Amino acid sequence: MSAHDMPMSGSVDMTHGGGGRAMAELIRTLFNKHFSNPILDQGNDGALMSLPPGRVVISTDGHVISPLFFPGGDIGALSINGTVNDVAMMGARPLYVAVGFILEEGFPMADLERIVVSMASAAKAAGVTIVTGDTKVVEKGKGDGVFITTTGIGVVPEGVETSGSKARPGQAVLVSGTMGDHGVAILSKRESLEFETEIVSDCAALNGLIADMLAAVPGVTTLRDPTRGGLAATLNEIARASHVGMMLDEDAIPVRPDVHAACELLGLDALYVANEGKLICICENHDAETLLAVMRAHPLGRDAARIGTVIEDAAHLIQMRTGFGGTRVVDWIAGEQLPRIC
Amino acid sequence: MSAHDMPMSGSVDMTHGGGGRAMAELIRTLFNKHFSNPILDQGNDGALMSLPPGRVVISTDGHVISPLFFPGGDIGALSINGTVNDVAMMGARPLYVAVGFILEEGFPMADLERIVVSMASAAKAAGVTIVTGDTKVVEKGKGDGVFITTTGIGVVPEGVETSGSKARPGQAVLVSGTMGDHGVAILSKRESLEFETEIVSDCAALNGLIADMLAAVPGVTTLRDPTRGGLAATLNEIARASHVGMMLDEDAIPVRPDVHAACELLGLDALYVANEGKLICICENHDAETLLAVMRAHPLGRDAARIGTVIEDAAHLIQMRTGFGGTRVVDWIAGEQLPRIC
Repeated sequence: MSAHDMPMSGSVDMTHGGGGRAMAELIRTLFNKHFSNPILDQGNDGALMSLPPGRVVISTDGHVISPLFFPGGDIGALSINGTVNDVAMMGARPLYVAVGFILEEGFPMADLERIVVSMASAAKAAGVTIVTGDTKVVEKGKGDGVFITTTGIGVVPEGVETSGSKARPGQAVLVSGTMGDHGVAILSKRESLEFETEIVSDCAALNGLIADMLAAVPGVTTLRDPTRGGLAATLNEIARASHVGMMLDEDAIPVRPDVHAACELLGLDALYVANEGKLICICENHDAETLLAVMRAHPLGRDAARIGTVIEDAAHLIQMRTGFGGTRVVDWIAGEQLPRIC
Repeated sequence: MSAHDMPMSGSVDMTHGGGGRAMAELIRTLFNKHFSNPILDQGNDGALMSLPPGRVVISTDGHVISPLFFPGGDIGALSINGTVNDVAMMGARPLYVAVGFILEEGFPMADLERIVVSMASAAKAAGVTIVTGDTKVVEKGKGDGVFITTTGIGVVPEGVETSGSKARPGQAVLVSGTMGDHGVAILSKRESLEFETEIVSDCAALNGLIADMLAAVPGVTTLRDPTRGGLAATLNEIARASHVGMMLDEDAIPVRPDVHAACELLGLDALYVANEGKLICICENHDAETLLAVMRAHPLGRDAARIGTVIEDAAHLIQMRTGFGGTRVVDWIAGEQLPRIC
C-alpha cells in the first residue's frame, strides 16, 4: 500500500468548512481525488456543461439516514442512487450530480473517505458525473456525522411523457421487485436484530432498468420509486394526483419471506416500508406483459410483478383484496413508521 | 387578518419527514403555498422544464448559518441569494432553484414559515423560480434548527467566457463594494455587540448587476463572490488557478468605517471576512473604467472600486501595498476566522 492509498486519519474540524486552506486541502485530497472529472476539475464554484437537446429534469434529495453504514449500502451510495432514481422516474436520462455535505465536527476522516469512495463507485455504476459540490461543517452536537444533499440533472428523450398525474382507469400497476427490503435492513441494523439470513438494503440505481423499459414502451404512463412511506404512500400520491383509485391484489405483491417475518416481529407493514432500489410502473393494460418481460430480464427487475389495476374512484382510495378474500383500504400512513430511513 | 394569513403554530416533528400525510400537508400548506409556480405545482419528485439554448451552469451550496435571523437577512434569503450568485459568477443567467431542507425536531413552525416567506421573496426579487424540493427531519439534538441546501441552474449567454483560471498579468482587479459587512453583522449578532449604527449584512442577489456588466463588457475575465474566507481567500484561489500573482492597494479597498472599527474590536481582518452581496471582477485594463461606471450606476455597486492589478508571480502571491507605504503578503487563511457564517 503506497502512502497515497493509506486511509485518511484524523477527524473533521471547523476549519474544513471555513473557506480557507484547510477546506481547499480537503477538497483536493478527498473530493477531487475520488470524484475527478473534467467538469469538476475546472475548480469553479459551479459546473459548466453542455446538455443534449431535450426537456431537462432536476431533482434534489437530502440524506440523513441513520446508521450511516448498513447492510447493502451506506449514505454515500444511497445519496447517489436516490437522486439518480428520482431523475430517472421523471423519464429522464440522469447525467450530472451536485453534492452538498454538512459535516459534524469530530467526524472521523476515514469514515468520510469511505463514504466518498462509495459515492464515486455508485456514480460510476450509474453512469453519472459528480460535477460540483459544497462542504459545510457544524459544531459537535449540531449535526449527526454527515448529511448529504444531492441534486441530479438529466434530459428526457423525445416521446417520453411519464407523470404521476396521468394514471387512468384500466391501466396496470407493476412493481419491479420485493417491497420493504431497505427499511427493514435499516431498522434491523438500528435495533441490532439478528435474523437467520442478513436482510440487505436494495439500494441501487434504476436508470438502466428504466432505459430498457422505455426502449420497449416509450409511452409508459407513470414511474415512481416507493421510498419514504413505501408502496402505500406512493400509490396514494399517484391516486390523488391522477384523480383515480386502485385495486391491488395482496398475494401478488412480492415481499421476501425474511422481510415479511421481520415486519411481523417489528410490528411493521411492508407496504409502508421504504425501498431504495425498486420502482412502481403504471402502464396501459396491453403493455403490461411486454414491460414485465423486459423488467424480469434485468438484474434489478427479476421479481417484477403486476400487483393491481387503476380504477375509477372519486375518493381516490387504494384498496387491496387480501389473502383472506376480503378487501381493505391501504390508507396513507398518518405519521411515519421509520424516521431517518433515507 | 384572515385565518389563511395567521402565522403557523406548533413545531416540526418527526412525522413531517416521514413521507406520509403529515409531510404532504406541510408541503401543501407551507412550501407549495409560498413557492407556487407551474413547474413546482406538477407535484413530482423532480422538476421538468425547458432551458433556453446555451451552456448550462449548476451550483450547489449548503447553508448552516448561525444565527438563523440576522441584521439584513436570514438563512432563507441567504440560501437563495448565495446560490443565485454562484450561478451568476459563472457568467450564467440564473433561472431555477432546487431546495433541500434538513429540519430539527421541535423547530418552531412560525420560524420555518418566516424563512420560507423570505426565500419566496428573495427568489422573486432575483427573478428565479423554486422548482423542486425535499424535506427531511432529524431528532432534536441531531441538527440545529434548519439547514438549507440550494442548487441553482442557469444558462450562459453566447460569448460569455468568465472563469477563475484565466486571469492574466496586467488585468485590473475590481470589487463591487465594501468588504466584510456580512461577516461582521453575523458576528456582532452572535456576540450581542452593540455599535452606534447597526451593521447589516449585504446579503443580495447580484445577477442583475452582473447582467449589466456583461451587457457592457461581455468579455469579463473573472467574476467571483468573496464569501467564506473573504476577499483574501477568493483572490488566492484565483491566483492559484490562473498561475498569477496580484498587487493590491490597501487604501483602495472599500471598508465601511463601522465595519473597520468592529473588526479592530473583534480582532478580525476585513479582508478575510465573508461577504454575501459583493463580487470581485477581473477584466482587461482598458475595460476597467467602463465596468466601474456600470457598477456604480447599479444600487448594488455604488461603492465599486479598482483595488489592484494582476501581476506575474511564480509563487502566486497576493501582495498589498499598505497605507504605511510597505508591502505585505495577503496569505490564505490557515483555518477559519468565522465558522458557520453562511
